Amino acid sequence: MPAPGKVSHQMSFEAAVHAQAIDLDRLSLEMCASAGSGHPTTAMALGHIVTVLMFHTLRWSPEQPDYPTSDRLVLSAGHAVPVVYAAYARLGGMIGEDDARRPMTVDDLSSLREAGSVLEGHPNPMEGMPFFDAATGSLGQGLSVAAGLGEAARLDDNPRRIYCIIGDGESREGQIAEALDYIAERKLTNVLPIFSCNGWGQAARVSEQQSPEVLAKKLEAFGFTVRTIDGHKPAEIKAAFDAFVELDEDAAPMAVVAKTVKGWGATTALTGNWHGKPATGAALDAALAELEQRRVELTTSLVQTDRFTIRPPEAAPNKQITIKDAPSLSQMMRDMDMESVLHSGRFATRKAYGLALRALGHADERVVVLDADVSNSTFAETFAKDAALNPRFFECKIAEQNMVSVAAGLAAAGKIPFLSSFGKFLTRGYDQIEMAINSGANIKIVGSHVGVSLAADGPSQMALPDIAWFRAFTTMKDHRGEPGCYILQPADAYAAYGLTQVMAEHEGVCYMRTLRPEVEFLYSDDVVFNLGGFEVLSEGRDVLLVAAGYMVHEANKALDKLDREGISATLVDLYSLPFDGDALLDIAQRNNGYVISLEDNYGASIGSAVADVMTESGDSFTLKQMFVNRIPKSTHTPDEQMRMLGLTSDDITRSTMELLEVGVV
Amino acid sequence: MPAPGKVSHQMSFEAAVHAQAIDLDRLSLEMCASAGSGHPTTAMALGHIVTVLMFHTLRWSPEQPDYPTSDRLVLSAGHAVPVVYAAYARLGGMIGEDDARRPMTVDDLSSLREAGSVLEGHPNPMEGMPFFDAATGSLGQGLSVAAGLGEAARLDDNPRRIYCIIGDGESREGQIAEALDYIAERKLTNVLPIFSCNGWGQAARVSEQQSPEVLAKKLEAFGFTVRTIDGHKPAEIKAAFDAFVELDEDAAPMAVVAKTVKGWGATTALTGNWHGKPATGAALDAALAELEQRRVELTTSLVQTDRFTIRPPEAAPNKQITIKDAPSLSQMMRDMDMESVLHSGRFATRKAYGLALRALGHADERVVVLDADVSNSTFAETFAKDAALNPRFFECKIAEQNMVSVAAGLAAAGKIPFLSSFGKFLTRGYDQIEMAINSGANIKIVGSHVGVSLAADGPSQMALPDIAWFRAFTTMKDHRGEPGCYILQPADAYAAYGLTQVMAEHEGVCYMRTLRPEVEFLYSDDVVFNLGGFEVLSEGRDVLLVAAGYMVHEANKALDKLDREGISATLVDLYSLPFDGDALLDIAQRNNGYVISLEDNYGASIGSAVADVMTESGDSFTLKQMFVNRIPKSTHTPDEQMRMLGLTSDDITRSTMELLEVGVV
Repeated sequence: MPAPGKVSHQMSFEAAVHAQAIDLDRLSLEMCASAGSGHPTTAMALGHIVTVLMFHTLRWSPEQPDYPTSDRLVLSAGHAVPVVYAAYARLGGMIGEDDARRPMTVDDLSSLREAGSVLEGHPNPMEGMPFFDAATGSLGQGLSVAAGLGEAARLDDNPRRIYCIIGDGESREGQIAEALDYIAERKLTNVLPIFSCNGWGQAARVSEQQSPEVLAKKLEAFGFTVRTIDGHKPAEIKAAFDAFVELDEDAAPMAVVAKTVKGWGATTALTGNWHGKPATGAALDAALAELEQRRVELTTSLVQTDRFTIRPPEAAPNKQITIKDAPSLSQMMRDMDMESVLHSGRFATRKAYGLALRALGHADERVVVLDADVSNSTFAETFAKDAALNPRFFECKIAEQNMVSVAAGLAAAGKIPFLSSFGKFLTRGYDQIEMAINSGANIKIVGSHVGVSLAADGPSQMALPDIAWFRAFTTMKDHRGEPGCYILQPADAYAAYGLTQVMAEHEGVCYMRTLRPEVEFLYSDDVVFNLGGFEVLSEGRDVLLVAAGYMVHEANKALDKLDREGISATLVDLYSLPFDGDALLDIAQRNNGYVISLEDNYGASIGSAVADVMTESGDSFTLKQMFVNRIPKSTHTPDEQMRMLGLTSDDITRSTMELLEVGVV
Repeated sequence: MPAPGKVSHQMSFEAAVHAQAIDLDRLSLEMCASAGSGHPTTAMALGHIVTVLMFHTLRWSPEQPDYPTSDRLVLSAGHAVPVVYAAYARLGGMIGEDDARRPMTVDDLSSLREAGSVLEGHPNPMEGMPFFDAATGSLGQGLSVAAGLGEAARLDDNPRRIYCIIGDGESREGQIAEALDYIAERKLTNVLPIFSCNGWGQAARVSEQQSPEVLAKKLEAFGFTVRTIDGHKPAEIKAAFDAFVELDEDAAPMAVVAKTVKGWGATTALTGNWHGKPATGAALDAALAELEQRRVELTTSLVQTDRFTIRPPEAAPNKQITIKDAPSLSQMMRDMDMESVLHSGRFATRKAYGLALRALGHADERVVVLDADVSNSTFAETFAKDAALNPRFFECKIAEQNMVSVAAGLAAAGKIPFLSSFGKFLTRGYDQIEMAINSGANIKIVGSHVGVSLAADGPSQMALPDIAWFRAFTTMKDHRGEPGCYILQPADAYAAYGLTQVMAEHEGVCYMRTLRPEVEFLYSDDVVFNLGGFEVLSEGRDVLLVAAGYMVHEANKALDKLDREGISATLVDLYSLPFDGDALLDIAQRNNGYVISLEDNYGASIGSAVADVMTESGDSFTLKQMFVNRIPKSTHTPDEQMRMLGLTSDDITRSTMELLEVGVV
């Protein structure tokens, strides 16, 4: 357990908070001036709130800011981060990578936003600031992260509390409403949303829709007990936080609406285009002088770091995680009385995903599952319906942005979250997914009903540009040196089952795509699937077909037809992006450099990934990319859909013959 | 003006609505059974509401459903569409492409979801259903589209009203909260949100957070006057709609919360996994029998199509749109007293975008502009600050999803909306952008602060995988046969100004990327920029550098350095995706097939687009892709950022020498 904080009884709490807040305000102004950018006036609106939180209310230890039972602060209004850095420096909070931590000093503040500094322009735990759980700065996401941390704490019987500071402007983001609904529905009384209403957005005043009065009314309608306070009155802030700490577990969740002043204490900092342009030179001097004047009015004291008591977190239980082996898919199906399905030789990949979740849930208690009211389509319900696992299932309803960020919060608390919805609807959470990648969140994203094999429901339910987006993250490295994301596309149930396990074992973000239709088995329990791997399903010599997911089956059908035309084709199931490019090019070269890529989504996806490795090699290849090249529409069956889009085995056969100039004029 | 509808006075309104609603319910059941999929029970929850709307309240004409002053129905709960198709068939609404329209019949209903049918699984105006303005089906988007239609109507002094039906489950989507804030703030009293609370989601019951009671409370807190009604009582429905029609322009906007019953009238349709699986066979027969029983209880009449009066829309004024030529950039800058900036030789592309908006605003009254509280960063404010244009500026605050769909609504009403925010934050609206593309919406999306040249604020503000996503839409065709999207990357102010004009002239979706830093002029007023074009900035013979946006300037600096190493490089500014691949490959071949692509975003983007055309050609090329291959962090300057990421002109020079094996070991 970390050592307790410093204690003092020499002056009134009120005066101490004012003095400390003014000190943080001053440091915020100075560090932004030094950086030449940043948002000091937003920071200054939070000087008092952050002082009460970090010097008084939070149970934490600056020496071990990520201690498991530590209270957490999620700064959703990430651009206000200078004030938190200032407090952290005063308290000597630890910074740096795990193996080279040291206490932060006030001198460090002048490195704000420098290339070599841990003081990022917006919070990021992965750049050496372990006080935070998630990268913020893209607005409106923090409250969902806080909800995820709150869920994890409740699940683990961890007494920590989660405080989240949200700007009034950002509370216009719909995700905030999603998070409020989630917190209210789940009765997360360990999470405190604190709205800082300073009345100013970037381009203009904040809308009346986000005024303290309207926000308070909305929060009450959402089911919260609301305390509206003056965000610069220490006693009011303390009373609100004390009320939260004493909140009954069965009570309605609580929220604080704080009326704050942008650039509090130094209105001269507000001249000109001041939102992202800090005062420097004479303007800085004037602002500092005005702040000093406020200090003299409010307190006779200077910096008050040693006037507060910081209570350390409770000792964390020394808990061991035991991970068991999960059964094979066929064993699992037998256990679930699905013998007849097993013998049918067909099983949807989404259903295999559900079985894998259930198996993993029993094998590793860290595995948790989230879904967005479609668990009977994604088959996350296979996990949820297991009474032993159900407490680790989080129904997020139709609110995908919140789901992604809740998962990021759960991951920050050591869980391994799998989150699923239709691949199409996950698009709602792409900004949140990117922030999760930036945060180093260990989340597993599963999009179902991808491509066009959904058919009848039409394009509003089909994931078509999803590979293109996730592929950007396969081209770069995250903070661990791993690809920012792996894209996994199981073509059969064994692959889906195996890859779900592979995702759980990998630390980092993965995106797996599952299919609606029942598809034939291609593999068995014995096949090992790897991140970065692929499978050669048929070895030929004339042309290489590269497919994934549903198109592996169309390609499989084309093999026979090609054979009848005298063409010997190789078929690769490219189930992972990124993949071993050299190995694939070797195969392509053994097929005279002729390659056809097959996918039932828009282009810029698998085919482009193959084109990338080909052109990098400098060797000569010819690649014909077959993909969905128009907006699909409803058809009754997948076969009709494939015909409409020119992606049937006949189309593949014809294109291959054209490519090889066999039997065509 | 369309002819007035049919009139009758033979029976009570109440009985007529029941009879008609039951008829629609029956047709919904039957068409879904025929399709083998669909959501008849959701449709049946709306039988009465749709009857009152389409047979009584809406001022419209089935013969001319897209008449300019027609009232509109936006079906946000797109999966309920069978009930609208049923009403439309009974009324003989026109279907089909513009040049081959015909009235829809009841027989057409059996073609639901067929490949050749206009009856899509979810609404889509682009597949031959002019009753709708936007494709829906990805939930939570319709109310924003309705708000856009409402804004356009108000702007045009068009008396039409917009009705929007929203499911209770989908009202959990944060975008609904964003739309409600928008409607309340903008006092759009011509838009009526109608929440259908049937209490059932897909996987489970709808949350209590979306119960009629909580929804009503929330709506009141948002500033709406709420009428809670029984959605199956004709008199209550009619009274609510009448109240809306009579609403004073200065009143608070109104909302209806309707308590509805999923599968109303035929509870037997609700057995089993019924959300997306319609009753067939005996279950269908039982449901139809139950419905018939309800009819007998409620009315002695059968189908009531001829018992209603449909009031036609007001005659639309015959308004001519005149489009003037916009001045050149340098003319515009002189007009704006920016002569000294013009002579400085540097101007940010985002600022040129602002000037172009202002010029276009005066040239074409259809041009409207939306922004998300960052108009002083995107420079959309240059439009907003012009008093003559300000009424056509829509401040959407920090709520990007709503902004995109409002723009889609404005486009559906004939406007040419430009919408801007940071490229990073637009990610929030990707699902909405895809639905806009599916809707054929003529919107222009402008993402600012793209790539890493923003530097100090760090990755939470940088657009890095955006090209990868939009590029998927450059590979396919929309309903007009155009690329689903053009990606435009101006490298200087002239290009930004010119391409903004090009976007306005093109009918379809474009995505333009603008930069934060001031960048040097490369072009002049005389250069013509084209969709699909590129510019050769320097002609060499050894290697082709392909760059866009900020990297054109780094590449430019590398040319001299390469020259000193004896390497003659060609530089292409690839400002458009898609582009003329053959023309680019010709240039590559004249440079011995050696190509380096340069971009300051993640991979799977410009370089991949080049790789695609190379590998399709079958000729031999070597492509080295340089892009951002790690998660960026804050640095003070763009130069430091480029150094950190290995993207400076020195890095380009070194990579080129390695590629050509010049001067390296």
